[in-house]
Amino acid sequence: MKEIIDYQAYQTKMQQIADLKYASALLQWDQETYLPPKGNDFRGRQIATLTELSHELFIDEKTGNQLKELLQNDKLTDAEKRNISLSFEDYQKAKKIPAAFVKQLSETVNKSFHAWIKARKLNKFSIFLPELEQVITLKRKEADLIGYVTHPYDALMNEFDKSMTVASNDALFEELKPSLRNLLDQIAELPDPDNRFLRQHFDKDTQWKYGIRLLKEMHFDFEAGRQDISEHPFTTNFNSHDVRVTTRIDENDFGNMTWSCLHEGGHALYEQGLPADQYGLPLGEYCSLSIHESQSRLWENNVGRSLPFWIYHYPGLQQQFPKQLGGTSVEQFYAGINKVSPSLIRTEADELTYHFHIMIRYELEKALIEGSLKAKEIPLAWEDLYQKYLGISVPDDIHGCLQDVHWSHGSFGYFATYSTGSIYAAQFFEHISRQYPFLDQELKLGNSKTVHQWLQQHIYPFGRYYTAAELCSRATGEILNSRYFINYASRKFSDIYQKNIN
Amino acid sequence: MKEIIDYQAYQTKMQQIADLKYASALLQWDQETYLPPKGNDFRGRQIATLTELSHELFIDEKTGNQLKELLQNDKLTDAEKRNISLSFEDYQKAKKIPAAFVKQLSETVNKSFHAWIKARKLNKFSIFLPELEQVITLKRKEADLIGYVTHPYDALMNEFDKSMTVASNDALFEELKPSLRNLLDQIAELPDPDNRFLRQHFDKDTQWKYGIRLLKEMHFDFEAGRQDISEHPFTTNFNSHDVRVTTRIDENDFGNMTWSCLHEGGHALYEQGLPADQYGLPLGEYCSLSIHESQSRLWENNVGRSLPFWIYHYPGLQQQFPKQLGGTSVEQFYAGINKVSPSLIRTEADELTYHFHIMIRYELEKALIEGSLKAKEIPLAWEDLYQKYLGISVPDDIHGCLQDVHWSHGSFGYFATYSTGSIYAAQFFEHISRQYPFLDQELKLGNSKTVHQWLQQHIYPFGRYYTAAELCSRATGEILNSRYFINYASRKFSDIYQKNIN
Repeated sequence: MKEIIDYQAYQTKMQQIADLKYASALLQWDQETYLPPKGNDFRGRQIATLTELSHELFIDEKTGNQLKELLQNDKLTDAEKRNISLSFEDYQKAKKIPAAFVKQLSETVNKSFHAWIKARKLNKFSIFLPELEQVITLKRKEADLIGYVTHPYDALMNEFDKSMTVASNDALFEELKPSLRNLLDQIAELPDPDNRFLRQHFDKDTQWKYGIRLLKEMHFDFEAGRQDISEHPFTTNFNSHDVRVTTRIDENDFGNMTWSCLHEGGHALYEQGLPADQYGLPLGEYCSLSIHESQSRLWENNVGRSLPFWIYHYPGLQQQFPKQLGGTSVEQFYAGINKVSPSLIRTEADELTYHFHIMIRYELEKALIEGSLKAKEIPLAWEDLYQKYLGISVPDDIHGCLQDVHWSHGSFGYFATYSTGSIYAAQFFEHISRQYPFLDQELKLGNSKTVHQWLQQHIYPFGRYYTAAELCSRATGEILNSRYFINYASRKFSDIYQKNIN
Repeated sequence: MKEIIDYQAYQTKMQQIADLKYASALLQWDQETYLPPKGNDFRGRQIATLTELSHELFIDEKTGNQLKELLQNDKLTDAEKRNISLSFEDYQKAKKIPAAFVKQLSETVNKSFHAWIKARKLNKFSIFLPELEQVITLKRKEADLIGYVTHPYDALMNEFDKSMTVASNDALFEELKPSLRNLLDQIAELPDPDNRFLRQHFDKDTQWKYGIRLLKEMHFDFEAGRQDISEHPFTTNFNSHDVRVTTRIDENDFGNMTWSCLHEGGHALYEQGLPADQYGLPLGEYCSLSIHESQSRLWENNVGRSLPFWIYHYPGLQQQFPKQLGGTSVEQFYAGINKVSPSLIRTEADELTYHFHIMIRYELEKALIEGSLKAKEIPLAWEDLYQKYLGISVPDDIHGCLQDVHWSHGSFGYFATYSTGSIYAAQFFEHISRQYPFLDQELKLGNSKTVHQWLQQHIYPFGRYYTAAELCSRATGEILNSRYFINYASRKFSDIYQKNIN
C-alpha cells in the first residue's frame, strides 16, 4: 500500500498548490471585472503573496525528494507515472526561480498593468515605459535563471509551449510569409467586400444576450461557468467546473463582442472538457498554449467566420437587429466579416494579415529579450515593422504599441502561440471535415456537435499526457503542417474575393 | 535600528497572513454572488486550504518567539505595542487549535452550508440535521480546545466579543426582558399601525437603484466598495479600500431590500473607516462583533427607521413608487415600518420583538454547546420558545429553525452580538443626539454627516486598540447601559402607538 499512500500524498500537495493558484486566479478575475478602483493596491500585494506562497510550496526540497522516489515506483498506473514525470519536470524548472523573484515579478507586473491602463487612457507610451523597462529587465533575468541553449527568448517561449523555440518559430514564419504574401497580393487586385454594416449602432443589452446565446449554442456549460464584462476579453478557470469568460461590447462595432465570445468560448470549452478528477495535476491541465489557442481560433474562425455557421445563425441575428442588418444578405455578411485589409489593431485583424501582427510582435520581443532593442525604441520599431509587413503607418501609441495587454502582464513569448494555434486549428478542422463529409450541412442546421465531440474525443481529455506534437499526430495523423492553413485560407478567400467580382 | 526591523518583519508576516485570509474572503464572496453551481465542490476545498495555510503560518513557533521578543521591546510606539500584544493574545489562542482541525471545520461548514440551502428548498430540517450534528460536534470540540472557566459556550462567544460570557449575557437579557415585556404589553392594548403598503409589487430594478442611492446618501464610498445581490445579505471586505455589501430584493416586500441596505451599509462604513495603513494588523481590524453590529443597527434603526430620516427621503421614494406609496403619508409610512408584532422571521422583526428572537437562539445555542439539547430536538425546542416568548406557533422549518444561515456557517456565539449591538447603538445615538441638538433638523434635510463624522471620530479609527467597553466609555462617558435602549424604545414606540390612537 505504500506506493498508493505516496501517490496520494503527492496528489494532496499538488492540489493544495492548485488551490492557491486558483485562488490567485479568482483575485485576478475579480480585478478585471468587479474590483472597485481603490482596491487595486492591496489586490496587487494579495496576488503577489499567493503566487509566492504557491511557488514556495512547490519548490520545497521535500517535493523534490518525494517526486524522485515516485519516479522509481513501477507499480503506478501509466497516467500516474505521467503526472509524476511532468511534475518533476515542472519542479526542476521552478526550482531555478527563487520565491523572492516570483514575488517581485508579480508585484512589478501589477504595477506595470496599471501603468499600461493609464498610458492607454492618455495615449502615451512614455507613461508605460519605465514600468515596461522593469518588466523586461526581470524577464531577461528570468530567461537567464531558467537557462537556454541557443537564444534567451527560447526560455520564455517554452513557458507557453515546451516545443517552441526561436529556430522552430523562425522556420514556421518563413514558411508562412511567402504564401501569405502571395495570397494577399492576389486579393489586393480584387475589389473589397463591404463591411460597413458592422459599424452601426448595436444596442448593448441585445448584443450581450446574443453573445450568451452564441456561447450556449457552442455548448458552453453555464452551470460550470459564466460570462462577464471586462476591458480586455479573457478566459480563466478555477477548476473544470468553473470556467469564466469575459467579453467587451462596442455599441458601434458588432464584431468586437461576437468574435471575442466565440474566441473565448473556444478556450472555455477546452477548460470545461479537461478531466475534473485530475484537478491540480498535470493531466488536468491544458497541453500547451498553442493547443489552447488552436481551440479559440478554431471556433472563432474556422467555425465562426464560415458560411455554413452564419447560414444558420444569420436570420436570428437579423431578427435582433432588423434595422441594421435587414438589408444585408448572408452572403454579403459572410464576405464582409472576412474582408481582408491591412489594419492597425491585431484583435480586429482578418485571418490573413493577423499573422503579420504576430510576426511583428514576435520580432520585437525577440530583440527586446536578446537586448538588441531598447524598450524606448519600441514605438519607432513598431512603425517600421507595420510599414514593412502591412504597408501602413501608425498614427499613435494606442493604435500601435499600447494596444496589447501582454507585455504589461509580463507575457513575453505568448504571441507566437496565436499563429501556431491558427495553424493547428486549420489542420484539426480540415481533419474533422474529411472525417465528417456532412459537417457543412450540419453547421447550416445549427448543429456544431460534431466539432465539439471530435474535440472532446481527441483534444480535451488528455490534459498534458501528450505533447502538442503527439496530440496533433494522434488526432490528425501528422505533426503540425502549415499547408493546411494555407490551403484553407486560399480556398476561403479566393472564393470570397472571386465571387465578389461576379 | 534592530527594533524597527523586527517590527517590520512582524508586520510583513501579519500582512502575508492577511493576504491569505482576504483571498479566502473573496472566494466566499464569489461563492455567494457569482459562482456557477457546479463550481461549489472545488470552491469548498480551496477555501479550506487557504484557511488551513493562514492558520499554519500564524501558529508557527517562529511567530510566537518573534512576538515574545517584541513584547519586551520598549522602543516601540504605543500603537505598535498594542498591535504586538493583541497579536500575541491571538497567537496564544490560535495555537490551541491544530491546523487539521481548522481545515476539517472549514470543509464541514462548506458541506453544511449546502445542506442548509437544500433543506431550505425542501423546507425540511431533517436534511440539514446530519451536517448540523457534525458542525455542533466540532464546535463543542473547539470550545474544549480553546478552554473556558465557567461555560463551554463562553469560549465560542469570545470569538465574536472577547468580553462576552454566558454570565454577562444572561444578566443583560434578564435586565432587558421585563422592560421589553412591559413595553410590549402596553403596545398590545393599542391599535396597530397599518403596514400593508410595504407588501405590494415593487419593481426589482427600481428597488436596486433606490438601494444604491441610500448607500450613497449614507456616505458609502463606491470607489472603495460595491453592492451585489446574494440570497442572504452580508458585508465583507478585503481591505478598507474594498468593502462589499450584498442585498436581496423581494418584489413583494419593499422592506427586505431597504433595511438590509441600511444594515449592511452601517457595517460597511465601519470597515471603510478602519485605518488602511494598519492592513493585516489588529489596529486595522474591527473592535468586536458587538461594536460591528452596533454600527449596522444604528444605521438600520436609529437612523433608518426614524421619522426625520424619512421626512427627507420619503418624497423621493414616493416618486419612485407613486402608485404604491402615493396614498400613504410619511407619518403613516413611519408608523407602518415600525409596527410591533410578534413574528416568525428574525430579520423581518421590529426593534422590540427582535430581542426575543435573539434570546431564543441564544438559549438554544447554549444548550446545544453544553450538551443539554440534541440537534434533532431543535424544531420542538424552537416551537416551545416561540410560544413562550412571542406567543406564536411555528408552521414549518423554513419559518422556524432553518431561517438563519449562522449555524450552517458554524457561527455559534454570534447571535447575542445583535442584541448587544442594538443596545450600543442606542447609547451611541443618544450621545450624538445630546451633543448635536440639531441632529433631527439635519436628518430632516437629508444630512447624516453629523452621525457619520461622530462615528469616524469615536469608533472607526481605533481598530482593536480599545476593548468594546473602553471604546464605549471613551465615546459616551460610560460603559454599556441597557437603559439607553429601553428609554429610546419606550419614547419611540409610545409616541407611535399613542399618536396612532388619536
